[in-house]
Amino acid sequence: MEKKVLAELAAIVGAENVSTATSDRITHSYDATQQRFLPQVVVYAHSTAEVSAVVQLANRHRLPILPRGAGSGFTGGSLPIKGGIVLVLTRMDKIIEIDSDNLIAEVEPGVVTADLQREVERLGLFYPPDPASKEFSTLGGNVAEGAGGPRCVKYGVTKDYVLGLEVVTPSGEVIRTGGRTLKNVVGYDLTRLFVGSEGTLGIITRIILKLLPKPAAKKTMLVQFATIDGAAQAVSAIIGAKIIPTTLEFLDAATIDCIRGVSRVAIAGNCRAILIIEVDGDAEVLDRQVREILAVIEPFGILDTRIAATDAESEEIWQVRRIVSPSLRKVNPDKFNEDIVVPRSKVPEMIRALEKIAARYQVPIVNFGHAGDGNIHVNVMVDIRQPGMAETVDKVMEEIFQAAVALRGSISGEHGIGTAKAKYLDLELDPATITYMRTIKAALDPNNILNPGKIFRGDQPISPAGPAGLPA
Amino acid sequence: MEKKVLAELAAIVGAENVSTATSDRITHSYDATQQRFLPQVVVYAHSTAEVSAVVQLANRHRLPILPRGAGSGFTGGSLPIKGGIVLVLTRMDKIIEIDSDNLIAEVEPGVVTADLQREVERLGLFYPPDPASKEFSTLGGNVAEGAGGPRCVKYGVTKDYVLGLEVVTPSGEVIRTGGRTLKNVVGYDLTRLFVGSEGTLGIITRIILKLLPKPAAKKTMLVQFATIDGAAQAVSAIIGAKIIPTTLEFLDAATIDCIRGVSRVAIAGNCRAILIIEVDGDAEVLDRQVREILAVIEPFGILDTRIAATDAESEEIWQVRRIVSPSLRKVNPDKFNEDIVVPRSKVPEMIRALEKIAARYQVPIVNFGHAGDGNIHVNVMVDIRQPGMAETVDKVMEEIFQAAVALRGSISGEHGIGTAKAKYLDLELDPATITYMRTIKAALDPNNILNPGKIFRGDQPISPAGPAGLPA
Repeated sequence: MEKKVLAELAAIVGAENVSTATSDRITHSYDATQQRFLPQVVVYAHSTAEVSAVVQLANRHRLPILPRGAGSGFTGGSLPIKGGIVLVLTRMDKIIEIDSDNLIAEVEPGVVTADLQREVERLGLFYPPDPASKEFSTLGGNVAEGAGGPRCVKYGVTKDYVLGLEVVTPSGEVIRTGGRTLKNVVGYDLTRLFVGSEGTLGIITRIILKLLPKPAAKKTMLVQFATIDGAAQAVSAIIGAKIIPTTLEFLDAATIDCIRGVSRVAIAGNCRAILIIEVDGDAEVLDRQVREILAVIEPFGILDTRIAATDAESEEIWQVRRIVSPSLRKVNPDKFNEDIVVPRSKVPEMIRALEKIAARYQVPIVNFGHAGDGNIHVNVMVDIRQPGMAETVDKVMEEIFQAAVALRGSISGEHGIGTAKAKYLDLELDPATITYMRTIKAALDPNNILNPGKIFRGDQPISPAGPAGLPA
Repeated sequence: MEKKVLAELAAIVGAENVSTATSDRITHSYDATQQRFLPQVVVYAHSTAEVSAVVQLANRHRLPILPRGAGSGFTGGSLPIKGGIVLVLTRMDKIIEIDSDNLIAEVEPGVVTADLQREVERLGLFYPPDPASKEFSTLGGNVAEGAGGPRCVKYGVTKDYVLGLEVVTPSGEVIRTGGRTLKNVVGYDLTRLFVGSEGTLGIITRIILKLLPKPAAKKTMLVQFATIDGAAQAVSAIIGAKIIPTTLEFLDAATIDCIRGVSRVAIAGNCRAILIIEVDGDAEVLDRQVREILAVIEPFGILDTRIAATDAESEEIWQVRRIVSPSLRKVNPDKFNEDIVVPRSKVPEMIRALEKIAARYQVPIVNFGHAGDGNIHVNVMVDIRQPGMAETVDKVMEEIFQAAVALRGSISGEHGIGTAKAKYLDLELDPATITYMRTIKAALDPNNILNPGKIFRGDQPISPAGPAGLPA
């Protein structure tokens, strides 16, 4: 990268916050996809004014600029696939305000999700969105990628809690969207346009979040089923009984085989599906809800039911869910995990489709996820060093996405599109819809400097000559 | 309008669905703002294909096109201020599907909101958004204007229930956004971009809505206070006690003076504020919640409390709220009502600001609304025939909006911007934010045919020569 550009960056954020060291470039080159793309420079921002100045500089020099939180995304949203400036926002990590009267929090984008949750819970409040990454992922990343989590079925996802944003636009201006009220219909809903836009339309520098009162109590139970259909029918029966649990997690047979022996809860030999059901709310309702749930799911081949009587027992149940991901590599060394979603009632059909795909291509597919909202985490477990396996995985993925869309579902429930799913976008969206989206992107970021190459297939390099100073 | 254009329209929708009759043009010339602008032609659409073809025609001829539901909007969103084609969507009024398994409804835009509510409630389901106009306003209009209602404090507003849309774009293409799942992060959230965009970015032809299970029971109470501050402190105390009622409606002293003698509930002579509080949920919780509410609000100067024991008594309480609007004209013949919102805890400050404005300009201001979400319906009651009164009302309105924004509130909570508030947009939004919005509009609707002149001040006529065939 040209020295002049580096000097300008140093003038904005201070020399100590600009690094071209190989070690820094490597540590900011990857995310959870395990792919690597080296940026030319890593810049640490500490204020909105700095972000604005860096974006203006990137515009002048036609340099790609990649906003980055914890880099824990699953679809490549933060990868510098065209080089450029990685703009690290983790040092903008202040919780600016928790307003108990109005049930609002205002935060900088670098705040770790679980840190905010702990702070608000100390005040008897509740920030429900709970992506699995919450102990390290940042709220800025959660908002940019539209993160979800198990509690969606009752409480919704990140997008349902964002009331307002401060954003640096692709031209480097600072704008404010939404506000501090639940109601606001003043012009276009830019707030929600930014949520899930993966840093391609602006860089989020401040977030106003809606909070709820913390539920008074919760009850957790783990139910073992003889068949996946039984578990799926149980899910439908619960919702049909007008009970919306906080979480309705499922594990399929292949997943159960991975955790047998390492789970703290004993699993029956003939158990082919597990549901983890949690309800929360007023204490006097929960016991009745648990009884009602047990009554409506009773016909569906239950092998064992465990109801947590204490927090420690609830923890034991959740341990079963948490050990799933680390246990999968027992099957094969390489995991290709995808995040699809289908209407809740279509989960059994989707699982059957996945079993057929697994059989046809002779690859193990392990499924678990959020049965309550139809969000299935599909894990294709292979040894990618085997000849032809990369191509097989590609075909398997495409068939999985096609099956989800055929059931009126979606190719991404809570992980975004990024680079990983860009080539599948047109499986779900028709060309006119994609054109509508691209028209918005092109109008707002005519130089295509903000996170280029994400979401849309064949997104062009930012200029025929390539960005200034490339390659480093 | 040119005969050729009329013939083309007749070829699309049938001659019986195209009218240039004065009577039809007049009945489609106004909304609840009482302003009138004659369209050149009224067209009744029956299908998405027809809407698409009419938009393409409007594009070819550079004619303004005004999607219209019930025409009950409060800010001029459906007014044909630049003439053109009023496209009536009330005949696209089918409830296409109510899917109890997945808690989803799919409807055409012309379905009346309360009709859907009754249909889903027959199945034990619940569509919470409840604008006051729900017995006649359409879901398409609710979505386009971002309608709200009293239940927002607990259940949110229209935007929180829209999962997906079918939309005809400004170029006449049909796109689908979102879908039938709670989770979906595939590209930009166009669904929410359309919600509240007032028909300026596309015409909604189909809507997928989220439903909830119907709450088992509800309890309604009406509490009379000696002061508005007492009522406001009571609201804060309820939320502070972690109770989120379904509705928390307030009436100020000036409102109470209007309904004295006509309300079925006897109002104490020294009553200066009323709260109508409703809680819903599981029956076993409600009695305790009512007791808790009564305990926490007790210190704040209560004159009388009535708790409905039956549905009929609950009706009696809601009658008090419903007679407010028709009773206001006792004060003065002309009502200028605005819809502002402030953070919940700022309601007393806002009421005091309104009292000062009323005193300074010597005009009665009557306030009621949704205390739970800070949404205040401000009614400036005047006799507009008095000399200088129109200018006074203008100044009063501007001061009201400034006061709301100064308290970090908004100039529109649930009525949109339309034509009525366009000139106040920059009180709330900074120029860069407005530019960002206008960039989107200009890119997607370069000919500015879709509902021109709305939201943004000084929106230009669609072409220097004016639309084809103007003036009629």
